[in-house]
Amino acid sequence: YGKNTIKFLRLHREGQKHIVKEVEVCTHLRLASAQEYLDGNNSLVIPTDTIKNIVLVLAKKNGIPTLEQFAIDICKHFMTTFCQVVYVKTYIQEVPWQRLHENGVPHIHSFICVPDGIRFCEAEQCRNGPLVVFAGIKDLKLMKTTQSGFEGFFKNEHTTLPERHDRILCGELFCKWSYGECRDFDFDCIWYMNKIRECILEAFSGPPDCGEYSPSYQKTVNSIQMSVLSKVSQVQVIETVLNNTFYNVVDMKNLGLTNDKEVLVPVETPYGSCACTLGRKKFLEA
Amino acid sequence: YGKNTIKFLRLHREGQKHIVKEVEVCTHLRLASAQEYLDGNNSLVIPTDTIKNIVLVLAKKNGIPTLEQFAIDICKHFMTTFCQVVYVKTYIQEVPWQRLHENGVPHIHSFICVPDGIRFCEAEQCRNGPLVVFAGIKDLKLMKTTQSGFEGFFKNEHTTLPERHDRILCGELFCKWSYGECRDFDFDCIWYMNKIRECILEAFSGPPDCGEYSPSYQKTVNSIQMSVLSKVSQVQVIETVLNNTFYNVVDMKNLGLTNDKEVLVPVETPYGSCACTLGRKKFLEA
Amino acid sequence: YGKNTIKFLRLHREGQKHIVKEVEVCTHLRLASAQEYLDGNNSLVIPTDTIKNIVLVLAKKNGIPTLEQFAIDICKHFMTTFCQVVYVKTYIQEVPWQRLHENGVPHIHSFICVPDGIRFCEAEQCRNGPLVVFAGIKDLKLMKTTQSGFEGFFKNEHTTLPERHDRILCGELFCKWSYGECRDFDFDCIWYMNKIRECILEAFSGPPDCGEYSPSYQKTVNSIQMSVLSKVSQVQVIETVLNNTFYNVVDMKNLGLTNDKEVLVPVETPYGSCACTLGRKKFLEA
Amino acid sequence: YGKNTIKFLRLHREGQKHIVKEVEVCTHLRLASAQEYLDGNNSLVIPTDTIKNIVLVLAKKNGIPTLEQFAIDICKHFMTTFCQVVYVKTYIQEVPWQRLHENGVPHIHSFICVPDGIRFCEAEQCRNGPLVVFAGIKDLKLMKTTQSGFEGFFKNEHTTLPERHDRILCGELFCKWSYGECRDFDFDCIWYMNKIRECILEAFSGPPDCGEYSPSYQKTVNSIQMSVLSKVSQVQVIETVLNNTFYNVVDMKNLGLTNDKEVLVPVETPYGSCACTLGRKKFLEA
Repeated sequence: YGKNTIKFLRLHREGQKHIVKEVEVCTHLRLASAQEYLDGNNSLVIPTDTIKNIVLVLAKKNGIPTLEQFAIDICKHFMTTFCQVVYVKTYIQEVPWQRLHENGVPHIHSFICVPDGIRFCEAEQCRNGPLVVFAGIKDLKLMKTTQSGFEGFFKNEHTTLPERHDRILCGELFCKWSYGECRDFDFDCIWYMNKIRECILEAFSGPPDCGEYSPSYQKTVNSIQMSVLSKVSQVQVIETVLNNTFYNVVDMKNLGLTNDKEVLVPVETPYGSCACTLGRKKFLEA
Repeated sequence: YGKNTIKFLRLHREGQKHIVKEVEVCTHLRLASAQEYLDGNNSLVIPTDTIKNIVLVLAKKNGIPTLEQFAIDICKHFMTTFCQVVYVKTYIQEVPWQRLHENGVPHIHSFICVPDGIRFCEAEQCRNGPLVVFAGIKDLKLMKTTQSGFEGFFKNEHTTLPERHDRILCGELFCKWSYGECRDFDFDCIWYMNKIRECILEAFSGPPDCGEYSPSYQKTVNSIQMSVLSKVSQVQVIETVLNNTFYNVVDMKNLGLTNDKEVLVPVETPYGSCACTLGRKKFLEA
Repeated sequence: YGKNTIKFLRLHREGQKHIVKEVEVCTHLRLASAQEYLDGNNSLVIPTDTIKNIVLVLAKKNGIPTLEQFAIDICKHFMTTFCQVVYVKTYIQEVPWQRLHENGVPHIHSFICVPDGIRFCEAEQCRNGPLVVFAGIKDLKLMKTTQSGFEGFFKNEHTTLPERHDRILCGELFCKWSYGECRDFDFDCIWYMNKIRECILEAFSGPPDCGEYSPSYQKTVNSIQMSVLSKVSQVQVIETVLNNTFYNVVDMKNLGLTNDKEVLVPVETPYGSCACTLGRKKFLEA
Repeated sequence: YGKNTIKFLRLHREGQKHIVKEVEVCTHLRLASAQEYLDGNNSLVIPTDTIKNIVLVLAKKNGIPTLEQFAIDICKHFMTTFCQVVYVKTYIQEVPWQRLHENGVPHIHSFICVPDGIRFCEAEQCRNGPLVVFAGIKDLKLMKTTQSGFEGFFKNEHTTLPERHDRILCGELFCKWSYGECRDFDFDCIWYMNKIRECILEAFSGPPDCGEYSPSYQKTVNSIQMSVLSKVSQVQVIETVLNNTFYNVVDMKNLGLTNDKEVLVPVETPYGSCACTLGRKKFLEA
C-alpha cells in the first residue's frame, strides 16, 4: 500500500535567482505483518497521510539535490525509522519546467513547461537487501521521415503487410535503466556529462546529414540500448519500450492523384509495441 | 513485442435480434531468437499487422463466445502455428454496451454504453508450459457514506491525521483472479452463476439495511477477496487494488457555520492505494 | 472571470438513509468596471476563492434540491449581493452516483458510479435581464446496429463514400435545452415525469421490436429534438450535437474470407459531427 | 455539421532535407436548406467523408504554406465549389514537431515533439460576407515564482483568502487574435518577424533580471494583450484566457517546521479562470 502522485514544488532561492523542482512522488510500503488485512488491527499501519507528510518534510529539510538522491533519502528514511517496513519503493517524476530566456538572457524567476520527454527515477529496497536505483526518460515522441523500412519478415496466409524500404518511423519512447546497487553517485552529473538524452536521440536518428537505416523497430531499440550501455559505464541494465504510430500513405488513385508519400495519415490504434531489456553480458527480450 | 488496442466489434445476428461484443485486444509474443534486435534479420518476425489480422480472422471464424475463450483461442493459434513463438500473452477488455429497454422490453438492435466496471481477461502460455487464464473487473467506482473509519494506527512525530470512526469510503476497484491452468470452463457461466460482480459489491457494502463497518481499506480489500474465494471454487488466487479518494469535510468555522459532514470536497491527488494478492492456503501482500 | 470545477459532495441524511449529490460547479462573473485589467485596482474584484466559498456555503445552507434550483440560487446570490456584478453564469454537472441494490433491496448508504450520460444545467443572468435556465444530458453513447443508412447524397469528383442502406449508427449525444425565463418549476419533476432521458433513447432507437430507419445522422438528431419538444411543454429550444463514430466493415477478401458485416473496426478520428438547434415555430441549423 | 480532427502529415522534400507539417483540421459547414433534417432528403448534403477527402486533396495539391493560408484555401474551396454552402469554418492546429539537432547541426529528417504551446488558426466565411482569419497559441504553461500578488480586493463575510504580495503565479495561457478581413498576408512572416510568442512570454515575465510585479491575473492578461496589439499592427482584436493553478504553501507548524515558501502544493481543482477580449479603441471584458 502507499500514496500515489504526491505533487509538490520545491523552491530554492540563490539570492534573486529562483530554482524550481516540481515533482510527483509515489511511495509504496510492505509491512512485516498482515494483521490489518486479516483482523482489522491497524497498530502497525503507517497512514498514507503520514507517508505524504514525510515526503514533504524530507523535501523541506534536504531539498531535491537530484531526483535519484531524493528517492534514496525517502527509502532510507522508511527503512531506518519503521522496523515494521519490510519493503519500500519510491517513484519520482519531474514536471519539465524550463527557465525562460529573453534574447539569450536567462530569467531569474520565470519558467515554461516543455514536456519533450519526462525524467523519472525509482529506488527500492527490501529489508536486509541492497538499495537499487533506476532512472529513465519517458513520453519522448520521435519521428524520422525516411531511412526506415521493414522487409524480409515471416509471411503466411494471414500476412497482408507489404514490404517497405522507405517508411516513416514514429513512436513514443520509454527508457529505464538500473544503476545497480546504490553507490555514491552524482546522478545529475552522470545524466549531463554522458549526455544520456542526446545519446538516445542520436541512436534513434543517426548522423544529421544522412541518418542511419533502421530495418525494424527492434533494431532501433537495440541501437539505443547499445549506445547507452557503451557510453554510460554506471548503467547495468536498460529496458526500452517503443510504442509506434504507423503512418499510412493515403491512396489517392480514386481521387485522380498520385500521392508520392506526401500526405500520410497516422494510425493511432491499434499500435505496435516493441520492448526489450538489455544488460551487460546477458540479453533478455520481452 | 506485439500489437496493442486492436479494437473491433463482433456482430452476431439471431434472426432479427442483434448481439454485439466490442473488445480491445492486446497480443504480445516472445520469439525463440533475438536476431532481429542484434542483426536486423527479420526472417522470424511475425509483423504486428499480421497479429492484428489473425485476431480479426479468429473473431470472424469463431466469434467471441466468451472473452476468456477468445483469449485462449488466440494463444493456442500462435503456439500451434508459429514454432518460433516461445511465449504468448493476450489481454482483452470489453466495451460495456448494454441492450436498451423500452418499458421493460429489450430492443432488438439498440445499445447504450454503461461503463460501471469493465470486464477483462488475460491468457498466457510459455512453450511447454500450461495455458493460464485470468479474469477480472476494473474501473469500478464505489462509495459508502458511513460505516467506515480508521483508528488505532501507528503514530509518530510525522502523524497529523486524526482518528476517525465515521468517514466516507470511496475508491476505484480493480480485481483480477486466476482460474489456474486452463480447463474446459464455461467462463460466462462461472461469472453469472456465481454472481461475481454482485459478490464484490456486497462485500464492499455490507447488508442493505445497515452496512458493515470497515476499519480500513485493507480490511475491505480482504473482505472482497475472501468473499470471492469462498463463493467461486474455480478461482485460485485473487489480486485486488483499491485506489481511494479521500473526502475532506470542509471547515466552515471561518464562514460562521457548523459543517456536520454535509459538504465534503474530494481530494484527488495524492491518492492512497492498497493492493493485496490472496490465494488459497497462502497469503501474499504487496 | 470565475472559478471552474468546484467539486464537492453534498450529503443529506434521512434517518439511516443517506442521499448523495456530488457536483462540479463553474461560476463566472462580469464586473461593471475593468479597472483591475487596466490599472491593477482590485477593489471591486471578488476573489475566485470567495466564489468557491459562496458556492459551498449555499450548498450547506440550502442543500441541492435540484441541479437547476441550485444554479438559480447561486446566480441570484451574486446578483443581489454584489452590485458590481453585471453578469453571472453558473454551470453544474452531476457525478452519476447510483444507489446500490442487493437482490432488489436499495442500500441505505452505498453507491456506484454509472456514467451512462451526465446531467448538467446552466443558469445565466445579465443585470436587469431575465434569469434563463438550461438543462441537458451529455456523454450519452448510443449504438444501433442496423436500421441506418446514408443514400442519395451530393456527389462530385471528391466523393469516394459508397451509398449504404444498412450501416451501424454509433455516436455520443449532447442535448441542451432551454426552459426559458426562470419560473417556479420543479425541475426534477419535469425530468422524471416527462421521462426526458427515455424520450431521447426512444427517438434514437425506434420501437423495440423493429427499430426505425434513420436516413442520416441529421434526421436522427431532428427526431430526438421533435420528440423532446412535443413531449415536454416547458422546453423552449433544444440544441443537439451528435458526434459519430464510423464502423468500418473489415475487408477480408485478401484473407480468403467473406465478412458479412460481422467484424467491424471503429474509426475514432476523424469523426463526423452534426449539430442542430430547434425551437418552437422557428428552426436554426448550425 | 462537419468533420473533426482530420489528422494528417504533409511531408515536403527539398533534396535530402525533409520538412514536416502535421495538423488536425476541423471543417464545419452550414447548408442553405434544412431538408435533410426535416425530410431525410440528403441530395444537398456533402458527406463528411467528402469533406475529409477535399482537405487531403488540397494538402496534396497546395501543401501547407502556412496554417492560416491552408485554412483560407479550404474555406474558399467550399464557398466556390458548393453553392448550397452558406457558411464554412475551418480550425487547424499543429502537432509541434521540431527538427532535431546534433551538436548544433540540424538533422535532415529527424524530429521531436515539443508541446510547449500549440499554434492554431481559424478561418470562417458566410456567403456574401468577408473571410475572417484568426490565429493563436494555446496550452502554454507558464510560471513565475515571485513578483506576483493579490491585494486590496473586495471583502465580505465569505472572504477567507488572505492578502498576498508574494505568491507563485502559474497558469495555462490561451491567446487568439483576429487578423480581420483576409488580406494577402504572409502569416508566418507576421508570426516570426514580430516574435509574437516571445512578446507573450516577455509580457508575462517582465525583464529577465528583475521581472515585473503582477497585482492580479487580470493585469497580467491585459499586459499580454497590450503588448501584442502594440507590436503587431495586423492584429485587430485579441482574446486571452488564463486558467491558473494556485500553489498552496504547506503549513508545517504541526510538523515542527517553518516553511518559508519552500514547499508548495499545486491545487488543480477548482481553478480560477480569467478571460478578456481587447480590441483597438474599444474594450470588452468577459
